[in-house]
Formats: sequence, C-alpha cells, structure tokens
Amino acid sequence: MKKIALFTSGGDAPGMNACIRSVVRSAIYLDLEVYGIKYGYDGMIRGEISKMESYSVSNIVQTGGTILKSARSEDFRTKEGREKAYKNLKKHGIEGLVAIGGDGTFTGANLFYDEFGIPVVGAPGTIDNDLYGSDYTIGFDTAVNTALDAIDKIRDTAASHDRVFFIEVMGRHSGYIAIQSGIGGGAEMVMVPETSTTIDDVIKKLREGRDNKKTSSIIVVAEGDEQGSALQIAERVKLETPKMDIRVTSLGHIQRGGGPTAFDRILASRLGLAAVEGLMNGQKNVMVGVIDNKITYTNLKLAISKSKPLNEELIRLTKILSI
Amino acid sequence: MKKIALFTSGGDAPGMNACIRSVVRSAIYLDLEVYGIKYGYDGMIRGEISKMESYSVSNIVQTGGTILKSARSEDFRTKEGREKAYKNLKKHGIEGLVAIGGDGTFTGANLFYDEFGIPVVGAPGTIDNDLYGSDYTIGFDTAVNTALDAIDKIRDTAASHDRVFFIEVMGRHSGYIAIQSGIGGGAEMVMVPETSTTIDDVIKKLREGRDNKKTSSIIVVAEGDEQGSALQIAERVKLETPKMDIRVTSLGHIQRGGGPTAFDRILASRLGLAAVEGLMNGQKNVMVGVIDNKITYTNLKLAISKSKPLNEELIRLTKILSI
Amino acid sequence: MKKIALFTSGGDAPGMNACIRSVVRSAIYLDLEVYGIKYGYDGMIRGEISKMESYSVSNIVQTGGTILKSARSEDFRTKEGREKAYKNLKKHGIEGLVAIGGDGTFTGANLFYDEFGIPVVGAPGTIDNDLYGSDYTIGFDTAVNTALDAIDKIRDTAASHDRVFFIEVMGRHSGYIAIQSGIGGGAEMVMVPETSTTIDDVIKKLREGRDNKKTSSIIVVAEGDEQGSALQIAERVKLETPKMDIRVTSLGHIQRGGGPTAFDRILASRLGLAAVEGLMNGQKNVMVGVIDNKITYTNLKLAISKSKPLNEELIRLTKILSI
Amino acid sequence: MKKIALFTSGGDAPGMNACIRSVVRSAIYLDLEVYGIKYGYDGMIRGEISKMESYSVSNIVQTGGTILKSARSEDFRTKEGREKAYKNLKKHGIEGLVAIGGDGTFTGANLFYDEFGIPVVGAPGTIDNDLYGSDYTIGFDTAVNTALDAIDKIRDTAASHDRVFFIEVMGRHSGYIAIQSGIGGGAEMVMVPETSTTIDDVIKKLREGRDNKKTSSIIVVAEGDEQGSALQIAERVKLETPKMDIRVTSLGHIQRGGGPTAFDRILASRLGLAAVEGLMNGQKNVMVGVIDNKITYTNLKLAISKSKPLNEELIRLTKILSI
Repeated sequence: MKKIALFTSGGDAPGMNACIRSVVRSAIYLDLEVYGIKYGYDGMIRGEISKMESYSVSNIVQTGGTILKSARSEDFRTKEGREKAYKNLKKHGIEGLVAIGGDGTFTGANLFYDEFGIPVVGAPGTIDNDLYGSDYTIGFDTAVNTALDAIDKIRDTAASHDRVFFIEVMGRHSGYIAIQSGIGGGAEMVMVPETSTTIDDVIKKLREGRDNKKTSSIIVVAEGDEQGSALQIAERVKLETPKMDIRVTSLGHIQRGGGPTAFDRILASRLGLAAVEGLMNGQKNVMVGVIDNKITYTNLKLAISKSKPLNEELIRLTKILSI
Repeated sequence: MKKIALFTSGGDAPGMNACIRSVVRSAIYLDLEVYGIKYGYDGMIRGEISKMESYSVSNIVQTGGTILKSARSEDFRTKEGREKAYKNLKKHGIEGLVAIGGDGTFTGANLFYDEFGIPVVGAPGTIDNDLYGSDYTIGFDTAVNTALDAIDKIRDTAASHDRVFFIEVMGRHSGYIAIQSGIGGGAEMVMVPETSTTIDDVIKKLREGRDNKKTSSIIVVAEGDEQGSALQIAERVKLETPKMDIRVTSLGHIQRGGGPTAFDRILASRLGLAAVEGLMNGQKNVMVGVIDNKITYTNLKLAISKSKPLNEELIRLTKILSI
Repeated sequence: MKKIALFTSGGDAPGMNACIRSVVRSAIYLDLEVYGIKYGYDGMIRGEISKMESYSVSNIVQTGGTILKSARSEDFRTKEGREKAYKNLKKHGIEGLVAIGGDGTFTGANLFYDEFGIPVVGAPGTIDNDLYGSDYTIGFDTAVNTALDAIDKIRDTAASHDRVFFIEVMGRHSGYIAIQSGIGGGAEMVMVPETSTTIDDVIKKLREGRDNKKTSSIIVVAEGDEQGSALQIAERVKLETPKMDIRVTSLGHIQRGGGPTAFDRILASRLGLAAVEGLMNGQKNVMVGVIDNKITYTNLKLAISKSKPLNEELIRLTKILSI
Repeated sequence: MKKIALFTSGGDAPGMNACIRSVVRSAIYLDLEVYGIKYGYDGMIRGEISKMESYSVSNIVQTGGTILKSARSEDFRTKEGREKAYKNLKKHGIEGLVAIGGDGTFTGANLFYDEFGIPVVGAPGTIDNDLYGSDYTIGFDTAVNTALDAIDKIRDTAASHDRVFFIEVMGRHSGYIAIQSGIGGGAEMVMVPETSTTIDDVIKKLREGRDNKKTSSIIVVAEGDEQGSALQIAERVKLETPKMDIRVTSLGHIQRGGGPTAFDRILASRLGLAAVEGLMNGQKNVMVGVIDNKITYTNLKLAISKSKPLNEELIRLTKILSI
C-alpha cells in the first residue's frame, strides 16, 4: 500500500481534527502518501481530493469541527455516484480509505467496500457513543463535559430560585450523554431511551426530594427518550405539580462544538494511528475501536448492525447518588 | 446608622454573591451590623432575617447564583404584606436596605421607601444590562462570555457543515447581550429589539455572504426581537432560501449561571461597597451604578422609568465587521 | 457492618469531593451509618469525627479540593498515635474505613490494618495516576485537562514569537500527566522519568523541527525527569542553540485544583460506591480500582509496592505525531 | 489616503487577532487597500508585506496570539534599518500605519513618524494595561480572567490543606493584573509596585487572618513588586512564621495566551475601526484608546512618557474585602 485517503462524514464531533492529524502524520511516518477528501462522500464524487503534508495538520489538534468538512450525500446513495467516487480514487492511485464518522458513514463505507473492494477502516467519530465495537467514540467525552458545564451553570440558577429543571441533551437512540452528564452533574433523575421511566416515576421522585428538603432538582432527558422531549415531559409533570416552579432547557448544538478534551484528543490520536496501521496490515472492512483500553478491529457489518447497551452500573449509580 | 440588611431579588445573575460578600464585609469594616434576608421580599415578610458575619461570605466570590436565594413575592404587592415586612425590619432595628436585583426589585424598593421611608440603595444585578443609571450591571459580562463561548462552539459545527445558524440569546427588552456576543462571536448579523431588521434584510445578507464565498453564517437574535423568536425568524427565512442548511438553537438558562468573570466580580465588589457607603452618607432611594467608570447614585424613580439606549457605535461595528 | 468512616489524606485531587459524596450516599442507601473524619489521620487521632447525612454532601460534586480537608500526620507515624486513632474509631463504633488518597495514605492504612485489624478500602485519589491496581486515579483526567489548557495557551504565544517552550508539569515519579498532555497539546517532545532522553536528543529534535520549517516548539517535561527540571534542561539546551528563543514555564499547583471533569466525577462516583460495597462484602485491606473499565480490588500491599508502567503505545504516539 | 498597512509588535496579547480583523475589514469597508506586515518592524525591514482581504481574517476573532506574528527588531534601532523599512512601505504605496502593541512598539512608531512623517495610529495591545491614554488595553481583561481562573484553582488546594499561597502574576511596572485578579480571587493581600508593602505587613496580615480563624490565605504578587519575586517574599515570610505551610506559584506565560474574552474582542474591534478612521481623518502620531468608554486619540509622545496610576478605589477595596 502506497497511497491512502481520509475523510470525515456525518455529524461533526470534537476530536475529528485530532484524528485527521493523526492519520496524516502516521501515514507519512509510515511512508505512505496521504490524501484528504473534502465534504465526505460528496467530495469523493466531485473529486475534491488533494495531497496532505505533515504541516497541513499543524495547529488543529485543539480545534473543534473538521477541517475536511462534512456533508450528507444524496448522490452516494446511487450506484452511479459511487462509481464516480471510485473512479476519482483510482485516478489518484488511492488504495485504502480511512472514514471518520458514525453509523451512516460506515453504512456507506461498507456498501462501497462490497461493491468495489477498496479497503476501508472506519474511525468512530460521533458524540453519541452509540457504536458497537468501541467503548468510546471520538467526541463523546467532550460532549459530556460540555453538557456537564451547562448543567453546573443551570444548577446555580435552579438553586437560587428553588426550581426544577428539565434539561435535554443529545442522544436520539442512546442515553450515554444523558447518563454520564446526569451522574456528573448530580441530577436527581436521568431519562434515557434504554430504560422506561414513567411520568409518575418523575413526579414521585420530585415529591420525595421535596419531602427530603431538596429545594431544587435537575432531571436530564436524552432527546430520544420514549416519553417525549424534555418540554413534553415537563408539561405533563406540571399538570400534577402546580406548586413546583418547573423550567425546561434544551442544550442543542453547543454539544457538537468546542475544542476537544484531553481524553478525546488522545483517543482520536490513537485511533488515527491504528486506522493507518490496520490498512497496512491488511484490514479490509472494519471499524477500529478501543475495548478495555486496547485497540480492536470490528467488522463494519457488525459495527453498524449491533447495538451497544448502556452500562447497568451507571444506571444504578444515578439512583443511589440522587437520594 | 447602626444596622443594615441586604437581599437579592428577581432573576439571579452571576456576581450577586460577590456583591453580597462586598456589602457584608464593607458594612462590618465600617462598623455596621449587617443582616441577610433570604428569598427577597418574600423572606422579608416571613421574617427570614439573620445576622451575617465576615465568615458568612467566605469562599463565595467565585460562585454563581445567590446564597440569599431569590423569589417573586405576590404578598409584597399588597399593602398588608409590605407592612409585615416593615415590622420585621423594625423588630431587628434595621435602618437601611441594600437591594440587589433589577427593574422589578427596584420598583418594589421604591414603593417601600415611599410608604415607610426606610432608606434603600439598589445595586443593579441582572444579566440584561438594561438599567438606566449604570453602564454595566452585575452579571452582564458573564452572560455575554457564556453566550460567546456557545457561539464559538456552534461556529465549529456551522463551519464543518456549511450551515446557517440562528442563535437566540436572552434580552426581552434589550439587545445588549446579543450585540456584544454577536460582535465578539463574529456574527454575520445581530437582530435586537432596538433596531428594525426585516426578514428581507436577513435574506439579502445571507445571499451576499454566499456570493462573497462565506460558507457558513451566524445570526444572533435577542429573544425580544420584533420579528419574533429565532425559530420563527428561521422558519420564514427557510421559505425563501430552500437550498441553505439552516439550524436554530436557543441558549436558554445557561446564560444565568456560572461563576462570574473578573469584570463582574470587581464591579459587584465596587457596587457593594458603594451601596453601604451610600446608606451611611444619607442616600435614601437610589440605585448605585458605574458611569464612565465612576460610582454614581441615580434616583430609583429615574432608574426604573428611563430606558438605556443601545450603543450606536456597536450597532455600526456589527455591520462593518461582517463584510 | 453498621458503621463506617471515611477520610481524605495526602495531596488533594479534583474529584475527591465527588468520591466523598458517593461514599456517603452509597452507605446511607445501603443502610449504613457513615462518619466523616477531618484532616485525615491527624483528625482520626484528634477525634474530629462526625456523622454525615445525605445533605452533608449536597452541591459538592462539581467542586475541587476536599471538604474533609487533608493533612500530613507526624503522630500517625508513632504507635501511640495509631492507638489513639483506633480508640477514637472504636468509641464511635466504626467497623470499616474508606481512605481516599495515594501512596502514602495507603501505606498508613495498610499498617493500621496490620496492627488493629480494622477493615479498610482505599480509593485512589491522586493526580499522578501512578497507583498499581487502577488504570485511572481520581483527579488525573482533570489535571491533564488543566495542563492541556495551559499548553494550548502557551502555544498561542510560542507561535506568535517563534519560540521554543519547555513546560514543566507535575509527576515526580511518573510521566502520565506529561505524556497525555503532551500528546493532547501537540508537543514536539515529552520528557518523562520512565524513558531516558538526553539533552542531545532534545537539540536534535529542535533542529529537525527547524529544518522542517516548524517555527515554534513545545517540550513537556515531567518534574521528575532524570535530566532535571524544565529550567535546568532549558539552560543546557540554550548553551548549544544560542539563536533559538527559548522560554520556560512551570505549571505548578493549578494542576491540583479546579472542578473535576466528567470523567473524574464518574470515576469517583463509581469507586465510592464500590468501596462501600467492598467493605460490606468482606474486603479487608484493599484498594478499589478500575481495570479495563471493570471494578477490581487489589491488596493494599500490592498497590503500594508495585509500580504501574507507562503505556508504550502512548510513548510511540508522541514520536509519530510530532513529525 | 488609499493604502494602509498594519502590524503587531512586542509581547503578544489575546485580542490582537480581533484587532487585526477589525482593522482589515474596517479599511476595506471604508474603501482602503490594506496590507499586513509580518513580524513587526523586522518584517517591515525585510519586506514581508502582503495585501489582505476580508477573508484573510475569517475565523480569527476567537483566537489568541497574532496571525501577523511579532518579533523584537534590533535592526529597527538603527537609522539604516528604519530607512529600509520606509522604502519598503513606499514601494507598496502605503500612506498610513496601524501599529498594534505596547510601549516599545509606540516608541519605535513615534521615532519613525518623526523621521519620515508617515502617519501612524497605535492601538494598545498589551496584557499589562499600563498605557497612558486608554482605560483598558487589549488583552488585559483576558489575562486577568486567566490569572483569576488559576487563583480559583489554587484556592481549592490551599483550602484543603490550610495553606498560605503566594501567587505571582505578570506586571513588571504595573499592578493592574495583580489588583484585579486579587480582588476577583478574594485574595487576602495584593502586593504591587505602586504601593509599598513591607514583609512585616504581610506577616501581620497572615497572623490577623489566623486569629480570625482563616485557615488558608492567598497573597497575589505582581512580578515587579519592590519586595522582590513571590518566591523571595515567601522565603522571608517563612523565616518568621515557621508553623505556617507556605507555598509559591508563578503563573507565567499562560497569562499571555488563550482566546480573548468578550470584553477584549469588543475593545479590539472598536479600537481597530477607530484606528482606521483616525488615519482617514488626519491623525498623524497618536494612540487610539478608550477613556470613560469613549474613543480618544492621545499623542504618542504622551502615551509613551506618562504613566497611568493604579485605581485608588481598588487598592482600598482589597483592604476592606479581605477582613
């Protein structure tokens, strides 16, 4: 293998730049040529491919977003689009791909490999931490810390006014951000898609808290919770607890941005190197990940089809710590 | 004057604790006894009044919220409530009040002074910076920095995806937070209640940006803008610009919390001392403020009736810097 | 087991309060009485022991330092002191101990167990991450992020002036903080006690960087590096590279403080619960830790005698990423 | 006037990039061509001058350091060097200069104006806030907040161990950073070059604190204090107070870096516009500043020769608040 290319795709996540840097420098260190593709699959089709050097990735390890940009690609869903993409790669002599992204990115990569046989190693970059095959994904730790910082701020105002706050965090199919920021933020309750919590449970918990002289409470809600959005849940709770001063806030897109934490920079750096080495060692259609702190490669078909369960220990912790 | 009391009221603001600390220590330093009233006017009526010592305010200068708590008081709107409050103050021998809060707080204080003649000095504590009689209010600088930090994060993801973001910040009647965080965040446009910007202006600006090869844009909207909320504005813009990838986020209550900035801690400390000295020097019904970096006292009636115009220079700056 | 006590000892670390909170609430949740001992072994001897309730640990999860305070104890080094300590525990009917701290803390705990047989579970709280028996210690992730934030800031000024900076971080016997903040901060080189790097290696690296058109460089030095302090190393490098503009900064005690990161709050919460459950399940003289993301108990004698090697993968990463 | 140039010089300060952005965009908005000179006077001599466009300054408002870099110039101290510099400016048709920097920068600019008559407007960019002619300099607010953040962290560990900390902050001739971070950080004492505090004063204060049951204390020392460095002062205090646990930390270069605060971004933006407008309106040899929140122009000779006194009100505040 002489030439590889890399791209980012799907929702951006803090640490993607640290991963780009690691892929580029690892490739050069290991005597490969390395090309950057802009705008993910869309740029692959349009031919936005250019050679990267060591200095191309200077001074980006600490930045949020992705210098290679990201986009959804309707064209890549067509056979014609994928053929164009493949031809562009061949034109540059590219023999292997590093795809940094999430579920959708890897679904595309897997299909592309099946059709054209070009080896691809995926690196998990998504704040949701919902990928089978890695204990952690790039961006998750930063997103949790961002959510936590917001929860810390909101607790100040909740405590000053004896209020109950419902705080919605990201996580359409997964409660990872909610459960970790909830424990870290000292939340009274965490509502996630993986567990079923009823409105009555919420009301009971709030009343218990009031009886135990808690003057304010924070409930963290994952956006994909089965009871609805934080706003919807709060409206239903209000009906039963007219005397409580209940507020709602949704943290939104701030969770996607910001400079990455140390954890994410190091994870991204490790995965970037391991992705390049995976390609060199003959990996063909895998996602690189970290399980029990060790580098592992998981077949892409598995990574996109299996789901990663929430840590039971953490679910139990939220109950114990909120007494 | 031998004994004074202080309280916080209305929406909490970062730096209120630094102001409480300054009032307490300044009073003790100047040989006064000082009492803290919890929950604002409500606590005054219920008699939640207790003596404070120098150590009562240790280790709070860096914290958000208010250790004296805040609440709205329906009872204080009644003559009967205010009489109870006055009796409670008399019972403790309190001869002067420091009221930390905003518009509503001072309206109550002014009425209370008119009825009972108890001298009161208000210290402006509100993130909105909308009080006549002070260039800056306690909490404003922190709120702007919090908004700015969020805008910085959102720009990462906006730039990665070539998106347009409408970001709503606090300010029901005032565009101070919007204009300062907009300039600081390099926003393409700022929409505030004090100026009239049409939906067509927004669309024109976005199209100009696109023509100048801006790939992403940020528009900061004060919640009280005459065109509606950020969400409403974005919906109308989307109708005319179907190809732009437009997103909306509302920063919400994180703007009220967090440890105060240096600026707010120092402002709060200065105003706390000046409030106590104002009472000792015979001020009776005023708000203490900082104008042109000097301590000033403004009659409460003026402070609550006059409005503070937005800085024209800053409005012009947003236009120039967003080219 | 009906009654347990907990204390913090040795150098403080961010997350100790989150661990205290978890121990207290877990104990109460599991129907134990729980006592807090102030000032570590010293307070045990002086009898500064008092019952803690669920609300005793409200609103501390986000704070740095330790509400139970910490101190070195000369008296505990004497048999007489330890006997006093034991009597005080017996007086309160305490049947088990949770000791939050590092190497020195556990050495004392182990001795105390050997002499008096009181069961003790140690929870690793030290920014240095140098304890055998846990992949991570409480406070390490926060310290790394603090160091990284400082490195990010210093890179701004290094780049503006084309300077070389030697930055000293904590770690007397261990390079964990150095290696992680170095990788995260994009350092050109990391000098740690576990590897031997000569002054010539440093000079060679700086010259290579200059030849590769790097205009500025950052070298992170663990305080315990065998070549001496950052200042000493820099002085020797300067002699050979008179044209380079070389500066030195030592980050110092800021690395010990600050609110804990999400990672540390969750780690501390998990270890606190596991420490209490360890005592209830008959553990007698162990340190609780996390290995491969699972709770483990390691005999205290092992924990204090074996050393934890630095991750080879990370040492290699620093070389690759700094090209 | 058709063409102007700008440069940064002297120690870098957060917000310089925001000022560069403002100068460039303001110039273009006002129909001027604008050139950037790299490495200050040195680059002027070497001819490192190139045209800047609106997009040249995209995405820098939030960054620390200076994209135009900074350097000391020995050559500019010679008549020959300055002649070369002037010729290079003439070659590009440059008719006016914006110089962003501090004392040394303006001394050079003033001399250059005297010799060659090229109009220059200085914008005060230095963390020290020690320039006559402006209440605030670009970078000062950020440096104070950085120092404050460090003090907040150190207080955690000081409080946990009942320690006294001497913290050295920047300020060779001026105590601005010390006094503001000291008030903001709740320091027990602040030592600055502008006031004379003896070692006996320090010891007296620490003993009073101990008698008032303060268990820990923080003393902020400006590096230029007449009693010496924080380390030297601490050593002398230790001799007299052997029982106190005294530590020292010097914050160092972190104070120069980091993304600018809102205050600094806005100040930098205002001064950048005002510098360009000053040139257009015929200003010839001035520093632009903000006094009482209004834009002002001060003759460069005055700006570099007069000193700005420390605010007496703040000195008094530190005494009152530390009881």
